[in-house]
Amino acid sequence: MTMEKIRVGVLGATGMVGQNYIRLLENHPWFEVGYVAASPNSAGKTYEEAVSGRWHMNTDIPKSVRKLVVGDANIVENAVGKCSFVFSALGGDKNEIKAVEKSYASKDIPVVSNCSAHRHTENVPMLIPEINAEHIEIIPAQKKANSWNKGFIAVKPNCSLQSYLTPVYALMKAGYIVKRIIITTMQAVSGAGYPGVPSLDMVDNIVPYIGGEEEKTEDEPKKILGRIENGKFVYNESIKISAHCNRVPVVDGHTACVSLEFGSKKPSLEEIKKIWAEFRSVPQELKLPFAPSQPIIYREEINRPQPRKDRDADKGMAVSIGRLRECKVFDIRFVGLSHNTVRGAAGGGILNAELLKAKGFFD
Amino acid sequence: MTMEKIRVGVLGATGMVGQNYIRLLENHPWFEVGYVAASPNSAGKTYEEAVSGRWHMNTDIPKSVRKLVVGDANIVENAVGKCSFVFSALGGDKNEIKAVEKSYASKDIPVVSNCSAHRHTENVPMLIPEINAEHIEIIPAQKKANSWNKGFIAVKPNCSLQSYLTPVYALMKAGYIVKRIIITTMQAVSGAGYPGVPSLDMVDNIVPYIGGEEEKTEDEPKKILGRIENGKFVYNESIKISAHCNRVPVVDGHTACVSLEFGSKKPSLEEIKKIWAEFRSVPQELKLPFAPSQPIIYREEINRPQPRKDRDADKGMAVSIGRLRECKVFDIRFVGLSHNTVRGAAGGGILNAELLKAKGFFD
Amino acid sequence: MTMEKIRVGVLGATGMVGQNYIRLLENHPWFEVGYVAASPNSAGKTYEEAVSGRWHMNTDIPKSVRKLVVGDANIVENAVGKCSFVFSALGGDKNEIKAVEKSYASKDIPVVSNCSAHRHTENVPMLIPEINAEHIEIIPAQKKANSWNKGFIAVKPNCSLQSYLTPVYALMKAGYIVKRIIITTMQAVSGAGYPGVPSLDMVDNIVPYIGGEEEKTEDEPKKILGRIENGKFVYNESIKISAHCNRVPVVDGHTACVSLEFGSKKPSLEEIKKIWAEFRSVPQELKLPFAPSQPIIYREEINRPQPRKDRDADKGMAVSIGRLRECKVFDIRFVGLSHNTVRGAAGGGILNAELLKAKGFFD
Amino acid sequence: MTMEKIRVGVLGATGMVGQNYIRLLENHPWFEVGYVAASPNSAGKTYEEAVSGRWHMNTDIPKSVRKLVVGDANIVENAVGKCSFVFSALGGDKNEIKAVEKSYASKDIPVVSNCSAHRHTENVPMLIPEINAEHIEIIPAQKKANSWNKGFIAVKPNCSLQSYLTPVYALMKAGYIVKRIIITTMQAVSGAGYPGVPSLDMVDNIVPYIGGEEEKTEDEPKKILGRIENGKFVYNESIKISAHCNRVPVVDGHTACVSLEFGSKKPSLEEIKKIWAEFRSVPQELKLPFAPSQPIIYREEINRPQPRKDRDADKGMAVSIGRLRECKVFDIRFVGLSHNTVRGAAGGGILNAELLKAKGFFD
Repeated sequence: MTMEKIRVGVLGATGMVGQNYIRLLENHPWFEVGYVAASPNSAGKTYEEAVSGRWHMNTDIPKSVRKLVVGDANIVENAVGKCSFVFSALGGDKNEIKAVEKSYASKDIPVVSNCSAHRHTENVPMLIPEINAEHIEIIPAQKKANSWNKGFIAVKPNCSLQSYLTPVYALMKAGYIVKRIIITTMQAVSGAGYPGVPSLDMVDNIVPYIGGEEEKTEDEPKKILGRIENGKFVYNESIKISAHCNRVPVVDGHTACVSLEFGSKKPSLEEIKKIWAEFRSVPQELKLPFAPSQPIIYREEINRPQPRKDRDADKGMAVSIGRLRECKVFDIRFVGLSHNTVRGAAGGGILNAELLKAKGFFD
Repeated sequence: MTMEKIRVGVLGATGMVGQNYIRLLENHPWFEVGYVAASPNSAGKTYEEAVSGRWHMNTDIPKSVRKLVVGDANIVENAVGKCSFVFSALGGDKNEIKAVEKSYASKDIPVVSNCSAHRHTENVPMLIPEINAEHIEIIPAQKKANSWNKGFIAVKPNCSLQSYLTPVYALMKAGYIVKRIIITTMQAVSGAGYPGVPSLDMVDNIVPYIGGEEEKTEDEPKKILGRIENGKFVYNESIKISAHCNRVPVVDGHTACVSLEFGSKKPSLEEIKKIWAEFRSVPQELKLPFAPSQPIIYREEINRPQPRKDRDADKGMAVSIGRLRECKVFDIRFVGLSHNTVRGAAGGGILNAELLKAKGFFD
Repeated sequence: MTMEKIRVGVLGATGMVGQNYIRLLENHPWFEVGYVAASPNSAGKTYEEAVSGRWHMNTDIPKSVRKLVVGDANIVENAVGKCSFVFSALGGDKNEIKAVEKSYASKDIPVVSNCSAHRHTENVPMLIPEINAEHIEIIPAQKKANSWNKGFIAVKPNCSLQSYLTPVYALMKAGYIVKRIIITTMQAVSGAGYPGVPSLDMVDNIVPYIGGEEEKTEDEPKKILGRIENGKFVYNESIKISAHCNRVPVVDGHTACVSLEFGSKKPSLEEIKKIWAEFRSVPQELKLPFAPSQPIIYREEINRPQPRKDRDADKGMAVSIGRLRECKVFDIRFVGLSHNTVRGAAGGGILNAELLKAKGFFD
Repeated sequence: MTMEKIRVGVLGATGMVGQNYIRLLENHPWFEVGYVAASPNSAGKTYEEAVSGRWHMNTDIPKSVRKLVVGDANIVENAVGKCSFVFSALGGDKNEIKAVEKSYASKDIPVVSNCSAHRHTENVPMLIPEINAEHIEIIPAQKKANSWNKGFIAVKPNCSLQSYLTPVYALMKAGYIVKRIIITTMQAVSGAGYPGVPSLDMVDNIVPYIGGEEEKTEDEPKKILGRIENGKFVYNESIKISAHCNRVPVVDGHTACVSLEFGSKKPSLEEIKKIWAEFRSVPQELKLPFAPSQPIIYREEINRPQPRKDRDADKGMAVSIGRLRECKVFDIRFVGLSHNTVRGAAGGGILNAELLKAKGFFD
């Protein structure tokens, strides 16, 4: 009765996001790691050798992956026959990543990507399955436009917006128009990879700047909340978002302070809490393995959510919310928090793959 | 040619703010500590004994203060003859502090206070000398209303708003109307005193809540930016402010991310930088000893201001600003930073006292 | 075929160690929490109410415990009929704890304690089951001396020595005499409970002192490594131990730097690693649920063990060792690490209870 | 009456130690920066441009240095005529540094170095002026051996030993033989430069390893405490030192926990405190500008020294000691602390240069 597991590849498997994929895919009910690839200078080594001295997970390297020989991620042929699709956690030049990801798709290997390279590529869906699962319907058009057979590219958005976008969407889905949002994020250092942020910047300090992060936090929601029209994405330009992104000395967990203005119809605070508590979506309906049972957890404690205490909610896949109150300038204020390397990175990628699998895109 | 120094008292001298007063008043050109007072259980000890094991400054206790005998802060008579005015850094019940501060004023001992107790008391000026030095003109009315002779009460606002209010005021002074501000603060742990915030809340964590802080951040500016009319303060109700206050693992230095909406007339970013660079006010004109030579320092580096690097600007009395840019929702965004225990507490109190001295209020 | 679970009580259930017991006992295969007790001012509330605003675990309060009514820990009668034995995580005056723990034992309720109160009480075993499981054999003598029927007291040692004592003991068990040890510990803040260490002491700082900790680290091993003779403990006075105990900004995980001198027979470094790798003891033989499968894990990476990465080894119950090398002064040096609130506190207490259960002491 | 200042150069001026030199030399009474040099890719830029975005000091770049054009540190000729001697804070390959430093000496430019390259070079003194000022007497032999005229090389030891060696030496100078020392250091992140230690290793963590640090901590004292015999250094091999070096999340200030064994004659704890309190040496006698007035400060508080509170003692040039107590294994134990980037790096180098200046070596 047990399904044979689908073999998957991980591109950029030796980096921080790649390591998180390896960690989270251990004992996955549907997927198993059949291939790992990284930069040419890791190629040819066993995975264990390749990450020696720079394995940053708190659990040991899964036994099934230790002895896998690392392939050169630039050479698609290495992957053929070893995996049915790949997770892409590639780093480096954006244009090169674009090309590499396309080369996999062209060889019948779908790409479920964490990279920003294709986030605004036409026909590529940028998915948060609780929000826009139906955006996968663009994939046939994508395949056709590129003359790809089984291959395609699907991406996930930046980690910084996972802490606030699902709760905002839940309100929209309930019929409320969201006009303007001002956000300040306090982001964990794991988001910058390793070595990432120097400790001299994070002991007795914060850094009020993260390169490119504010733009992503402001722009990507417009596509995610957009719609498909005539086989193309129409961005949602009606929401205005302004983001201040800060780096703080926290290992994992991005926190967002959100002020939000509704359209003329305004829900009460109690209504909002109810909407959040009851919010369920496609991943829950499909019972996807990585889907949080309750995507939005509202905490009544006055001083929550907090990164160390709430990031692991529902295995790091739920968004925790707290401090919902009236805003003196807009309508409401709240604090949102999500696990940036789980929900915001590898875990989010796995949920995307589960959605695609459930919908038959890997058949 | 040297002026004889004015002897001052410090109420609450054994607490964190009190210790900062003791530290900052060492070698002050105008003032010298002649009296220290604290709670009854410190009374009778030398200052050195009273703070034994809980002196938290990085410099040693000034020699001139070590052997002063601590008085009971509740008994005004102890202070008489030992000081011309007192700095109040009292802690505890707000109503008791109100009464104690009044008792000093009634005995001809002016009170320059850090406490929140009298911030919204009618006729009590809440001063940031760069913004509202002229509010000291209310003092004669205050004295008259209370039938006080030489005594009076002047207060300073909460530390959380020092990081953004002076730069905002500079724009208003230059003729621009400021309509709405949304702020997120990331506040240092020293603001909570000692023992204050538990380390379990500050290692690998932030806390998105500080009791009472958002209200102060939102309400106090209305009085500071208000005006005196018929011997009473008229609050400025035209500015709308919303604050999210967070505690972060930083020793000293409160950071604020600010989004701001102007009235119809909007300055360019370059104009704003010029306004800030050229901003000078009463403390600079009067050459008050603790006045920063340049009250607002704009930093062009993309990732500044940062608490550890910028809090000590101009001995901790200047506000450092950076990242001025357009806001996607309002008009502009920027990051402000000030030293919460210097500018935001004891240093700010000393500057207030210097202003009052220069204007003859201690004669 | 499933055993009926033994109902247990937790004294001091609202404190940090108590909360860890509640957390770790959730889904325990042998034990279930049937009673919780704390100080009089928590008594009468539900557990959920009693810890409201001060639940510090990263997981939510177990459902089965939330609605339990908290008893007054000082009143033994409350516990009768609700639990077969109690875990004691009481805080406060040592003599009072001594008396309270004895009162439970006198009412047929065995006490498995984390407290230091009875650690040096004659006839009370201080257990690390991998080292001195046989010390439970003193219990009949203890019962007899106190005229207790089913009740007795068993304790665990201080968290600071768990990071080094099991590896040291493994060498002794292998036939090597250990003469002298100099240790420096770097201990996590969770060891001080909540609120515990102020953040002002832990941001950009360490504190080279923990009250009472060095004495415990030096003295307790002498009893643990001692033997029973004529129904009494004979302390092992042949090992000399000197400890420097420091508090560092780490949430969980005590690290120890150890220099060790052997007697005349000295093992090679390779021999030592082999001894550690192969070390198994009573908890492993008895397959106790909380027993780590490998009690001592040696890490070959040059910069391990590290608290954040290694504290959770084998669910926080294993000791991680690294950097074994020759000492320029003694014979060998190494770094040891264990999870202070799991192995070093509640987890260690549970393992003790499992040992006692397996040996029939709760029958 | 004012002495004309000596112009100095700084090699490696753009790195962290170099920046500290630039910062500390501002307003130095004897020296002024006349030349800055760094790697070829900084050469030709102004100093301000060269450190743009990576100036890590808390004070701004001194005005007198901002516009200096950075020279290529490898080309000695650039320095000729611009400075009377150089401070070397070069980074990179040890053999290359050796050659570069020699090339300056060969061109009549003495080198006062922070680098480890020449620390064990025959005839090169490794100086802590309070301990071995007389080691500068080797310099004529060094010049002769190399056929150098005015040039020579003098070095300072590693920062890790500054926290304990001066207090140990003070005891030796008072006539007590020191046989064995076991040290554990807890070292600040600034010691690793910038970017240095990743924040992922320093949030909720410590790292029990620093490459090469233990060897330096153990070996360098033997030369420093050695003597000159027949124009050569004879290392002091009678002291045995074992070091455990750890990295901890502290910005500045290395802490050392020391256990020490004397020879047969053992001072009392009171005697030791007296020796430390009264210890003065050559820098104090010569009234060198950077000499701490009291080189060893003993703190009676039970929990001191602490990095944040004590590193700045006497402008960062004094060593702070505390917790002197008997050792259960050796004779005494104590905790020492010094500022690693001041006393342990640039400040120590400046003190060396002051000694050499006072003794006529730059004439």
